[in-house]
Amino acid sequence: MNDARPIGVFDSGVGGLTVVRALMERLPFENIVYFGDTARVPYGIKSQATIYEFTQQIARFLLERDVKMLIIACNTIAAVAASRVQQWANVPVLDVIEAGAAAAAAQSQTQHIAVIATPTTVNSNAYARAIGRHLPEARVFSQACPLFVPLVEEGWLDNEVARLTAAEYLRPILAEDVDTLVLGCTHYPLLKPLLSRLCGDAMHIVDSAQTTAEWTAQKLAALNLLNQSGDAPFYHYFVTDVPLRFQTIGERFLGRGMAALELARLD
Amino acid sequence: MNDARPIGVFDSGVGGLTVVRALMERLPFENIVYFGDTARVPYGIKSQATIYEFTQQIARFLLERDVKMLIIACNTIAAVAASRVQQWANVPVLDVIEAGAAAAAAQSQTQHIAVIATPTTVNSNAYARAIGRHLPEARVFSQACPLFVPLVEEGWLDNEVARLTAAEYLRPILAEDVDTLVLGCTHYPLLKPLLSRLCGDAMHIVDSAQTTAEWTAQKLAALNLLNQSGDAPFYHYFVTDVPLRFQTIGERFLGRGMAALELARLD
Repeated sequence: MNDARPIGVFDSGVGGLTVVRALMERLPFENIVYFGDTARVPYGIKSQATIYEFTQQIARFLLERDVKMLIIACNTIAAVAASRVQQWANVPVLDVIEAGAAAAAAQSQTQHIAVIATPTTVNSNAYARAIGRHLPEARVFSQACPLFVPLVEEGWLDNEVARLTAAEYLRPILAEDVDTLVLGCTHYPLLKPLLSRLCGDAMHIVDSAQTTAEWTAQKLAALNLLNQSGDAPFYHYFVTDVPLRFQTIGERFLGRGMAALELARLD
Repeated sequence: MNDARPIGVFDSGVGGLTVVRALMERLPFENIVYFGDTARVPYGIKSQATIYEFTQQIARFLLERDVKMLIIACNTIAAVAASRVQQWANVPVLDVIEAGAAAAAAQSQTQHIAVIATPTTVNSNAYARAIGRHLPEARVFSQACPLFVPLVEEGWLDNEVARLTAAEYLRPILAEDVDTLVLGCTHYPLLKPLLSRLCGDAMHIVDSAQTTAEWTAQKLAALNLLNQSGDAPFYHYFVTDVPLRFQTIGERFLGRGMAALELARLD
């Protein structure tokens, strides 16, 4: 049994490319179609109703391209819309929050877990709920970090501004007996070296791009949906806008070139 | 002659409320209808084609509400779309770039003028062209400051992170013989105290909210379009999304409450 249909991965913008990168490394034979809603990014500052409407449009676009699985590679969308998309999509739907929450619950010893994310993700309380399903005794400390996304997009990953901003956001977390820090936004893996240094070696850092790739591999195997052709995979990227420096920023997230990039319209 | 029709002011989000605030102070009898495209903000990271498409939708929305003048209270939109909107709108169209450029050209002695703005505004070169029309000998130094908008929205207007970020962005400007600094983004007036301190007393800072209000007053008088009824004005705010903290952030920009706030749809 071999399923060559692509995996559909989507995000409000470029951040989900960190998940694509992890998928390419973990599942090197899978075809991937990526959708980034770059004309309307960022979602983290929009209302839940608007986020759900946009999400439906993207999911339909990918399902029309015959994907075998949907991966919500955006914490904000996952927080607001994952369970509703699961209800009507005719393929399995995975998301970064479920993957990150499971990994955090498995790793924490103190059962004190911190989550850093965008304001909308934090306010949705989705990580606390998801972690609670795996580890009911857990205490979850959440911190919104609205400046991290623009810092990453500016490329200020480890300068004095990034360090002071991170120290300010992490201060309330580091005051608790936290042993696990979940990077609850797909931009944040690029800040991992800085965050590791600030948190010290004892802190587990859960990178949801990597945990999502691992979770996807297990799910595809369990459902007998793996592509075992061994053919060179195709990667197709759809975006709703191609702004200045998009290619540069996208390739920083992806760690390689983006050949098949196409402008898409959502109606 | 008395014209009670409202002034239509628009922006990609909340930033244009700094212009509304200046208009309320300068023209206390004018009715104002504001449109903020909060579902798709920020525009400064989108392509010119997308920005123009969104701008047409907003301008049509306001013209259908019988405004007597359109004010583009967004530097990115002004840079990309002002001249095209002027071509087809049936009312006068003013914009923050033209107002800021005229004021900067009038104030500068050294004819070395700096403009700080979003990446899209800087790359459009619109300020340099507009200043050049008033002062052909001027040298214009532009600096993109992508972190300023998120800093303002976070409310970090004068802390160490804001200071270091501003110092980094201003460094190349302060190395030139600049005597006039144009705040080329409607968020930046909230950083004025910090920027003034970094630049020193000798620098003129052109706040395009204030200059646009002054320019509007002159234009309305010249065209015989002032509202001289003396009635209490109405202020109506349309937005495409009402995200978390919108009211709080909006009222920080406006300096007062927002009573008539309405969700609008653009098609």
